[in-house]
Amino acid sequence: MVSNSIGRNYVVTLFGESHGKGIGVVVDGCPPGLPLSEEDIQTELNRRRPTSAAYSTSRREEDKVNILSGVFQGRTTGAPLCLFVWNKEYRSEAYEEFRWKPRPGHADYPAFVKYRGFHDHRGGGIFSSRMTVGMVAAGAVAKRLLGEAGIGVYAHTVEIAGVKIRSQPTVEEIREKAYSNPLRCVESQTAEEMEKKILQAKSEGDTVGGVVECIATGVPPGVGDPIFYSLDADIAKYLFFIPAVKGVEFGAGFQAARLRGSENNDPYRVVGGKVVALTNNAGGILGGLSNGMPIAVRAAFKPPSSIFKRQKTVDLRTMEDAELEVKGRYDSCVVPRAVPIVEALVACVLADHLLPLGILGKPAES
Amino acid sequence: MVSNSIGRNYVVTLFGESHGKGIGVVVDGCPPGLPLSEEDIQTELNRRRPTSAAYSTSRREEDKVNILSGVFQGRTTGAPLCLFVWNKEYRSEAYEEFRWKPRPGHADYPAFVKYRGFHDHRGGGIFSSRMTVGMVAAGAVAKRLLGEAGIGVYAHTVEIAGVKIRSQPTVEEIREKAYSNPLRCVESQTAEEMEKKILQAKSEGDTVGGVVECIATGVPPGVGDPIFYSLDADIAKYLFFIPAVKGVEFGAGFQAARLRGSENNDPYRVVGGKVVALTNNAGGILGGLSNGMPIAVRAAFKPPSSIFKRQKTVDLRTMEDAELEVKGRYDSCVVPRAVPIVEALVACVLADHLLPLGILGKPAES
Amino acid sequence: MVSNSIGRNYVVTLFGESHGKGIGVVVDGCPPGLPLSEEDIQTELNRRRPTSAAYSTSRREEDKVNILSGVFQGRTTGAPLCLFVWNKEYRSEAYEEFRWKPRPGHADYPAFVKYRGFHDHRGGGIFSSRMTVGMVAAGAVAKRLLGEAGIGVYAHTVEIAGVKIRSQPTVEEIREKAYSNPLRCVESQTAEEMEKKILQAKSEGDTVGGVVECIATGVPPGVGDPIFYSLDADIAKYLFFIPAVKGVEFGAGFQAARLRGSENNDPYRVVGGKVVALTNNAGGILGGLSNGMPIAVRAAFKPPSSIFKRQKTVDLRTMEDAELEVKGRYDSCVVPRAVPIVEALVACVLADHLLPLGILGKPAES
Amino acid sequence: MVSNSIGRNYVVTLFGESHGKGIGVVVDGCPPGLPLSEEDIQTELNRRRPTSAAYSTSRREEDKVNILSGVFQGRTTGAPLCLFVWNKEYRSEAYEEFRWKPRPGHADYPAFVKYRGFHDHRGGGIFSSRMTVGMVAAGAVAKRLLGEAGIGVYAHTVEIAGVKIRSQPTVEEIREKAYSNPLRCVESQTAEEMEKKILQAKSEGDTVGGVVECIATGVPPGVGDPIFYSLDADIAKYLFFIPAVKGVEFGAGFQAARLRGSENNDPYRVVGGKVVALTNNAGGILGGLSNGMPIAVRAAFKPPSSIFKRQKTVDLRTMEDAELEVKGRYDSCVVPRAVPIVEALVACVLADHLLPLGILGKPAES
Repeated sequence: MVSNSIGRNYVVTLFGESHGKGIGVVVDGCPPGLPLSEEDIQTELNRRRPTSAAYSTSRREEDKVNILSGVFQGRTTGAPLCLFVWNKEYRSEAYEEFRWKPRPGHADYPAFVKYRGFHDHRGGGIFSSRMTVGMVAAGAVAKRLLGEAGIGVYAHTVEIAGVKIRSQPTVEEIREKAYSNPLRCVESQTAEEMEKKILQAKSEGDTVGGVVECIATGVPPGVGDPIFYSLDADIAKYLFFIPAVKGVEFGAGFQAARLRGSENNDPYRVVGGKVVALTNNAGGILGGLSNGMPIAVRAAFKPPSSIFKRQKTVDLRTMEDAELEVKGRYDSCVVPRAVPIVEALVACVLADHLLPLGILGKPAES
Repeated sequence: MVSNSIGRNYVVTLFGESHGKGIGVVVDGCPPGLPLSEEDIQTELNRRRPTSAAYSTSRREEDKVNILSGVFQGRTTGAPLCLFVWNKEYRSEAYEEFRWKPRPGHADYPAFVKYRGFHDHRGGGIFSSRMTVGMVAAGAVAKRLLGEAGIGVYAHTVEIAGVKIRSQPTVEEIREKAYSNPLRCVESQTAEEMEKKILQAKSEGDTVGGVVECIATGVPPGVGDPIFYSLDADIAKYLFFIPAVKGVEFGAGFQAARLRGSENNDPYRVVGGKVVALTNNAGGILGGLSNGMPIAVRAAFKPPSSIFKRQKTVDLRTMEDAELEVKGRYDSCVVPRAVPIVEALVACVLADHLLPLGILGKPAES
Repeated sequence: MVSNSIGRNYVVTLFGESHGKGIGVVVDGCPPGLPLSEEDIQTELNRRRPTSAAYSTSRREEDKVNILSGVFQGRTTGAPLCLFVWNKEYRSEAYEEFRWKPRPGHADYPAFVKYRGFHDHRGGGIFSSRMTVGMVAAGAVAKRLLGEAGIGVYAHTVEIAGVKIRSQPTVEEIREKAYSNPLRCVESQTAEEMEKKILQAKSEGDTVGGVVECIATGVPPGVGDPIFYSLDADIAKYLFFIPAVKGVEFGAGFQAARLRGSENNDPYRVVGGKVVALTNNAGGILGGLSNGMPIAVRAAFKPPSSIFKRQKTVDLRTMEDAELEVKGRYDSCVVPRAVPIVEALVACVLADHLLPLGILGKPAES
Repeated sequence: MVSNSIGRNYVVTLFGESHGKGIGVVVDGCPPGLPLSEEDIQTELNRRRPTSAAYSTSRREEDKVNILSGVFQGRTTGAPLCLFVWNKEYRSEAYEEFRWKPRPGHADYPAFVKYRGFHDHRGGGIFSSRMTVGMVAAGAVAKRLLGEAGIGVYAHTVEIAGVKIRSQPTVEEIREKAYSNPLRCVESQTAEEMEKKILQAKSEGDTVGGVVECIATGVPPGVGDPIFYSLDADIAKYLFFIPAVKGVEFGAGFQAARLRGSENNDPYRVVGGKVVALTNNAGGILGGLSNGMPIAVRAAFKPPSSIFKRQKTVDLRTMEDAELEVKGRYDSCVVPRAVPIVEALVACVLADHLLPLGILGKPAES
């Protein structure tokens, strides 16, 4: 079944496998004339790479991007971009066992059923979080397009292993501080607590989850389409592309279910000649359209499924109960590395919605 | 911008307005031979209609469906179905004021910007929750298709105004009891408490929100597509079509962010010759594919924005601050009426994913 | 299989059957603010209706269009338009026989296989040329959008039953004279010869075909997309939506295959400050993009398959040879009635390509 | 504008440029389990490469294909295939002049307008016939899928420079003889005459066109979708992807416009327990659906626009008249090299339509 392209105006086609030749992405819809270099994309890819932190996977791909098409003399041409990253450092032996003994929490079992055993199971194949390399590459171009129009997309870690940030930071704080520590948490002390929790879990062969928040600023009102292509439906959809995401909420989110209408409604005022909402429980989206306020979305990440504890599974050949011990190189918490991925995906949605409005991609003639 | 069709294999095209001639939906992709009558669809539409409860809107549309195409001699033909409901009972006068003074929490303001003032603002136009009539009609056909293949979709109210159900019901309990009270809550006593909360808010001119859960049973493993058309991404997207939804989560959802991997992973065992997960923190979805367990999703609904209290707004003609008092006929809580809508949308996603697998629409020859 | 929507920016969704409740079309993508009335659409539908000519079908549908959505206060709203025409005057008895004895040249046999007998066979169902009612309605809106931007689409009959027009008319002649006779032929004397040929065939229980040419003027250069959405690929595709079309060619068309490159290339010159091609063998399209010259396309129509002669067929129940005599009300030549259909389809393609360029739908504010 | 993916079930995404890093194609929708090697694709690419014939371009790309994703242990995995060919042998200097002085008959002028000068003009960029490398690669996979289901696609040259084949060959003759000479003409003597005509034109600095026919056998009845995705609309659309195609016709084609209905209708008979049409004026397609007869389509190719004669053009910088002499390496006739391209495109359409029917991609389990 065809399923590897997404978007209406900024179309991303993803290919590759975790232990195949590499990960690639075709970006269709980028207007001509945008200055773009491999360095622009590399910067974002580097943010996604594992850190030297003890809880980070020891698979150290350099993730060097190659622009295979769509750029000429330093600018986009209007033709599709193909961005490709070769896989270099992978070890597939560990995965032979999972071919028949599906890892709990991973896609192994349903993938086996769906592809009748023909899928590339190594490293999780197309279900690997390594596929997010392509998302980040596509998002890097989107962020560049948005940036030229004054639109910023900023994510940060707001919760890990139950440790939450103490207060909601301003956008400026997020922009300046999110990448100041490996946790991508604006509060350095909270970051330390988060790290402790991760290391503790790791020492027990276990993993932890958390929550990432993303704020988009500068989005004018009226962006989005009603119902089927509402901005919230699209952002939610894209965030669920990340394998570990189990929940998405906007503005007051699940908490809004406990508010009164009079508490939850965001009243309007004219400020500086513009319509402004005095609160932002809506997370910047009303009826699926942006209302000019910052777009605010949060995604919940489950703890990584690759734990170093003996687990119950089955053997798909014999259809008998079995035990499994996962070996390999994994993150004990994916939340920090997910921060740039969340930004990339939100940027892709915004590019998709803004492109037909003629706001993006209007550079000076060469 | 084109935005009124959704789906890949079960494509729903929505048209109409709250105070226009009616609401219609074209369903493309339904296989030939499915027995289908207007009654089949009417049953579902009736579940969505306002109840006689005091907190329910007094707009009493009969919502009688007309099949305009696609059925011949009592069965679907394979040609597109057009299902149409005439609007009959609406009053547009109240909305004249909102044309220039946008209601907080509604789409009025961004819609005005997007459509440059040309949109049909009456009753919210295409942003009205009345558009869910089309979703329920499309879902009715989907449920019928799924039902023939042994797949059931059951939603129920799990929380209103902070009042939560006491314990997680079984699927059988949901199926039997969800529609036994107007709150669509399996626990009758909890339903009474919920009702009290709604009435109390209503008496103060206010509104309340809540949470709906939906369980889909009988979905075989391996349904869904990786990443861009993962089952969770698609279900989340569809649930955000409902104007009031602000959050969506699967299985353990946001709570999963606080679990350890060893707690969150669902271990496998062979039971009755089948692979079964012993817990369902995944909500039936791994890597975007069904794993054979019940699919479990929850959606958070904000309190309705139409409150009967004076609110701050602006006048879009003069660009000055203004006050607003909403009049009209509204629900004080949409959660109970949203239950069949949630079912319809989840059914549409499942039909969309199951159709190419050849499981649906294999009736006996005529 | 989903197949009833077409277009990327001007999306047309078609539903209905020849002998069902009616024919409808949903048009998605029309920008807000376009003045539009039922009369605007009716004018085009009337051009498609059968004439009083002896060779025209005696089924006399009034084809009165109803705008079910998308227009408010005389202008489009930006929401999808639903245009619906009730069927009123049809007789289905004659078709019972064809259910099992497929008519040569019609879709009866492959439709029976595809839909496993569940399709609405009456009047050809969705394979009826009556479905072109929806195309003409959708095209009427497109023509209005194009007209506001100075783009005209003009078709005319250039050949019927081997009788060809004597010389290529100018666009002005086509615009003024094409609808001056029932044959939609610019040359009145040629039209008479064509009519004689049709009547002669009819008197022998037979039918004839012909060729329609369509010219689009005012299309600026650079419209179209390379390769997969080239203007010629899209126009050709749309013209093949008409059941009787068996060939499509642009500019010099098949004759270009017999020219030398030096004869076929259209040399450029600057005329009045604009780039102009001195000849138009390309039919206004180079590399799939408009080059600023009139777009010129021709479609070949086969003779109608419904002849009043005994024909060889089979009985699908017994799988034995059979004979068939078609009875009913049919055109002896569809070419004249196809002229507005060709215009409508070319207009839909142009709207689809021009909409994202921001040229269409820029009316004054209300 | 997004435009580089095509298909519904067998989706081809094309990227690359004539003088960029290479040409690539992503194929989405190929089912898992199909045996596939680079050699399988190379065989088809080699058929498209220039021959040693005097009239063939002297650009000698080896066109070696790399499978970058989607194949594991010699079989497709169900994940998208990326097929990539590096460009190696190109000379871009000659094209600098065309950047401002558009070549008649080429896309230079409209491309300049569309992309505002930012496109990669070298070698025609994305408008180059070199993009057909990707089509042939995608078609190679499609042919393999079709071949496993007993469906064959066979093209051959039927006319060059006015020289036509003397009689219609059988499918067996096409299959066996089409590639027996560089002209891809079944009749060896006719091929010689064609070659003479090409060489004569070449000696005069000129070029010639021609006609390719393609026959698809083994397609069961009922394949295709009515109207918008009719088999003829889709095949016509795909053939117009080839830059030089100016006309497409099915079965009797334009000649059908001159037949009577009684001559054009293909009568049915039961032969060997199957419904068979005694003639094939329909070209195997009725109402957009296959009728079980061989699908027969012809495409008219204009003579290549790159002639070695002085031509009139303009200078886009000064907007003044100019002259142009094309230099470089070109084919004097593209028809022979187009034969495998036509096959590839028809194969892609058939794969697109057959995949949801469950006929393709049912190999034995590994």
